[in-house]
Amino acid sequence: MLFVLSSPSGAGKSTIARKLLASEPELSLSVSATTRAIREGEEDGRDYHFVTLDKFREMVEAREFLEWAHVFDQRYGTPRAPVEAMLAAGKDVLFDIDWQGAQQLHQIAGGDVVRVFILPPSMEELRRRLEGRATDAQEIIDRRMSRADAEISHWDGYDYVLVNDDVDSCYAKVKTILAAERLKRSRQTGLIGFIRKLRTREA
Amino acid sequence: MLFVLSSPSGAGKSTIARKLLASEPELSLSVSATTRAIREGEEDGRDYHFVTLDKFREMVEAREFLEWAHVFDQRYGTPRAPVEAMLAAGKDVLFDIDWQGAQQLHQIAGGDVVRVFILPPSMEELRRRLEGRATDAQEIIDRRMSRADAEISHWDGYDYVLVNDDVDSCYAKVKTILAAERLKRSRQTGLIGFIRKLRTREA
Repeated sequence: MLFVLSSPSGAGKSTIARKLLASEPELSLSVSATTRAIREGEEDGRDYHFVTLDKFREMVEAREFLEWAHVFDQRYGTPRAPVEAMLAAGKDVLFDIDWQGAQQLHQIAGGDVVRVFILPPSMEELRRRLEGRATDAQEIIDRRMSRADAEISHWDGYDYVLVNDDVDSCYAKVKTILAAERLKRSRQTGLIGFIRKLRTREA
Repeated sequence: MLFVLSSPSGAGKSTIARKLLASEPELSLSVSATTRAIREGEEDGRDYHFVTLDKFREMVEAREFLEWAHVFDQRYGTPRAPVEAMLAAGKDVLFDIDWQGAQQLHQIAGGDVVRVFILPPSMEELRRRLEGRATDAQEIIDRRMSRADAEISHWDGYDYVLVNDDVDSCYAKVKTILAAERLKRSRQTGLIGFIRKLRTREA
């Protein structure tokens, strides 16, 4: 399963993704590549693969991305090889990507993709959270707010939509969605064998 | 949402349906009509609406069923009016019906239907459970076992498939599915209004 979490920056997606990865051993994170500068507290290879524009272009040409997009003059992409390796190892893969990434992934992988969108409880609260970070200039915050609105406008491209008015409750809902999706007939790889055995045991 | 629980007789569906209805105030049961005789412990109007063959035929002609089918020379059907009333009252509706009913309901209501199939852990266990009931003659039990196999052969017409090797764990899974399905974008009726308000509050 390709499990996509999207939200405007500041809506709490990263916290939820971190909690999810810590509690779900069968879920691995796809780390995106980006040309944007590394920020304080971030780690190369954990938060993003930070690459130069030249390197990013090389990767695009070599078809090394599952999906990629322009955001704010920067580029973001999902390296293909790690995702394929995780799926081959029987893991579900978590994607912390925006609506463009979610859309492209769905075009490639269809029903294997589960798309969850996390909304802030209000735009005022979103602005408070972005200002609380204090890492960004006002101009950047304004740009993020306008970007948030654009991101929210794509809410109807998602399978599930959650409002993050309480991070624990929102996290519990994401866990519920993941658990239910794993119970889908189409995702239970052992089921055909089980049913064959069930039906031949006592005819 | 039309929430269908199907399983071979004896796989634990009725226990799970009862627990679900007791714990979910927003879920109401669709009580089927049947021409079969009432059994000990059953109550008319609670377990089934027990009707004569003539009455059943009248209801079919009057298009009073959402779906109906022949099973073992008996007829079973879902009366339309109560379901429409429950949906109009904003309830989700639980259906305890077989694969034929699930299929017909899906043809009528498409994506509004969530179909869950409950499998027994083994056919030996299923036979034990049917014999444990002690209400039925051996011939009836044999017929139920063969019917169970036929029912299981339609497992691939369901959205979710569960194995009931432990009733509490199986019940928890059904609850998880119901909770996740309620988080689907397409089922959240208040969402469009919420997002409109969100986006106009601070442009």
